[in-house]
Amino acid sequence: MTTLQDCRALDAQDPLRGLRELFTLPEGVIYLDGNSLGPLPKHAPERIARAVRQEWGEGLIRSWNTAGWFEMPQRLGDRIAPLVGARPGELVATDSTSINLFKVLSAALSIVQADAPQRRTVVSERSNFPTDLYIAESLCRERGFTLHLLEAEQLPEALDEGTAVLMLTHVNYRTGAMHDMAAVTRAAHAAGALVAWDLAHSAGAVEVDLHAAGADFAVGCGYKYLNGGPGAPAFAWVHPRHADRFWQPLAGWWGHAAPFAFHSDYRPAPGIARYLCGTQPVLSMVALDCGLDTVLAAQPLGGMAALRRKSLALTDLFIALVQERCGGHGLGLATPREHARRGSQVCLTRAEGAYAIVQALVARGVIGDFRAGRPDILRFGFTPLYLRFEDAWNAVEHLREVLESGEWQRPEFHRQQVVT
Amino acid sequence: MTTLQDCRALDAQDPLRGLRELFTLPEGVIYLDGNSLGPLPKHAPERIARAVRQEWGEGLIRSWNTAGWFEMPQRLGDRIAPLVGARPGELVATDSTSINLFKVLSAALSIVQADAPQRRTVVSERSNFPTDLYIAESLCRERGFTLHLLEAEQLPEALDEGTAVLMLTHVNYRTGAMHDMAAVTRAAHAAGALVAWDLAHSAGAVEVDLHAAGADFAVGCGYKYLNGGPGAPAFAWVHPRHADRFWQPLAGWWGHAAPFAFHSDYRPAPGIARYLCGTQPVLSMVALDCGLDTVLAAQPLGGMAALRRKSLALTDLFIALVQERCGGHGLGLATPREHARRGSQVCLTRAEGAYAIVQALVARGVIGDFRAGRPDILRFGFTPLYLRFEDAWNAVEHLREVLESGEWQRPEFHRQQVVT
Repeated sequence: MTTLQDCRALDAQDPLRGLRELFTLPEGVIYLDGNSLGPLPKHAPERIARAVRQEWGEGLIRSWNTAGWFEMPQRLGDRIAPLVGARPGELVATDSTSINLFKVLSAALSIVQADAPQRRTVVSERSNFPTDLYIAESLCRERGFTLHLLEAEQLPEALDEGTAVLMLTHVNYRTGAMHDMAAVTRAAHAAGALVAWDLAHSAGAVEVDLHAAGADFAVGCGYKYLNGGPGAPAFAWVHPRHADRFWQPLAGWWGHAAPFAFHSDYRPAPGIARYLCGTQPVLSMVALDCGLDTVLAAQPLGGMAALRRKSLALTDLFIALVQERCGGHGLGLATPREHARRGSQVCLTRAEGAYAIVQALVARGVIGDFRAGRPDILRFGFTPLYLRFEDAWNAVEHLREVLESGEWQRPEFHRQQVVT
Repeated sequence: MTTLQDCRALDAQDPLRGLRELFTLPEGVIYLDGNSLGPLPKHAPERIARAVRQEWGEGLIRSWNTAGWFEMPQRLGDRIAPLVGARPGELVATDSTSINLFKVLSAALSIVQADAPQRRTVVSERSNFPTDLYIAESLCRERGFTLHLLEAEQLPEALDEGTAVLMLTHVNYRTGAMHDMAAVTRAAHAAGALVAWDLAHSAGAVEVDLHAAGADFAVGCGYKYLNGGPGAPAFAWVHPRHADRFWQPLAGWWGHAAPFAFHSDYRPAPGIARYLCGTQPVLSMVALDCGLDTVLAAQPLGGMAALRRKSLALTDLFIALVQERCGGHGLGLATPREHARRGSQVCLTRAEGAYAIVQALVARGVIGDFRAGRPDILRFGFTPLYLRFEDAWNAVEHLREVLESGEWQRPEFHRQQVVT
């Protein structure tokens, strides 16, 4: 049996343990929902206050130049790039993940229409994050393509000479299952299809190398593992071989080759800049910049490889502890045990009461979340930047108490709320 | 001749003069660029800091429920609605103006394709804000429509049985010229076309009554006269007669009828909610909320009607002072003198040196902006919430000195910068 002392020993040896100091974490909270909203970087309040008081308040309109507001999508994009195996100048921080997916998927369809017009199918996973499927459904309808939804096991065999684009989320939001990006991309390319990856649960969480995988397009989220604050701008990446082909349809002035010449005709900027549309929410961008500081602080300590090692150790530990301490309570494991197939979260299943159990845990300060489905899921995100091995032990101890005491059956834990 | 004393007398009688206290304005600055970026509301730093430290830092993911983050697009939309003659539940604050224009124009084209498929032209003004034209150009290309650009004088005669949508910006960004929204909408409807209005330079600046005008669609900007901070979310309005027809193509989960049921099929929410797409930048939303506080603070003092009266008095005064004090320096007036055709800005023209004159004024703390074109334009926005009649006098005095002294000819005022 693993003991609390074992966990504390792991913390004592953890080379990343100092990074926790970069965050403000509320007293008494074990935060296992950084895969939904990363916590507050300690330096963010002061940096955001400076953007508000000095840059907006004192600088006013001049700050577009003097505070570098105008270059933020590219500058932050260049900071995200090394976290996902992209190169400087290839990635922009902008808009929302859904909107960026619309842009890159639309560009992908335009490329296929030009190069291989007989390919008429967009393939994705039925269990993909729904907004990705809605955006794909909308674009397919608009462009005369068919959206074909499969189970992960049916890939890559289902790809054929009719497949235009394979659109996948790298790490599944419900189960934490991870695709082999390089193998799947290779198989899709062998079938003649382009591949668009959603890195919402990958960027800052697992090692990603878009260039090594030969990926075509990618989008990702700023407010999960990148700790960019609620609704932080997302990002878009396009492989340089595709970046100068076609407009994306959200052709706004920020993507124009000469935005301040105020020409009446659209002429797209070269490269990734054409994936920008309108003015970006500067204050939320500043918060994202602070979030990136926290992830990039791990670079001298081994970067994403070191974060990934600790993430796997944390999730291994959590899975083992649930098994050791919470047996006989009907919990299942939805997340793959195999490291190569696991993201940075652990998802448990239970035939009944999953929602109430999550609520009971939240009431105890153990913040995970619930995802409805078949089966319902208790979802626990593990962010190695600020979580300790001791936190995994304590979280499981709370879970054990909630289950053994029947505490989760209290009516107040059954009231439905909006959850994100 | 008007005197400084006259101007001070006007300020003393101004029923709105107290509203200036709602803003932090830098010492020594006369801010005539609120039509590009509104200034900082005095209460915004504390409110934003609370959103950062308490809602994000302490509340973490729970704040989606407890801090009302999830309802912000609708709640802020309901606050904007009375400023533009819309009703509660009809308007959402979200995304950028360009993206919202894409949504509403796309919906408008879908309606025309269903109801009057022979109509294949989108009509707009050649001098419309370029990003609006780029978005229209992109959608027309995608949907097989033709974008037809005219001079304002050619409207409404140019509308005919081939016109699908008339897309106009209510107040021109370069000249400050304003369309008669009701008359133009009536003429477009008489020709069988739908009308989409961009209210970027109208919302919070001039009286707008979308329902009285019978408008079909509208979008607008949060960071200009609504003082929502740099890159604040924009807004979208759709007349209820159209709101439930068709999806807009940016069909993301926030626009789904049941976003947290995580269905794999898209089912649009009823009404304006389907014009939402992905997660919104909460911190920038909070700043917009503060900006709306400042505009809504005028409601008990007469609201938009009172703001409009003062705006016209300010721009009348500025025009008169320029004429009285800056004659013989080659300045022209691009803004209509007629009240019914004037927005809330005054645009001067000059054959040469307009850029340098604006820079020389900025160096003196008189912040207006420059817009290149034929002719080049010196643009001065007048926001009655915080500008005094004395400010108009002092601004013109600086302009006179810059022109008479030849100060604008100094080389440092001729270096080009990015401007927004």
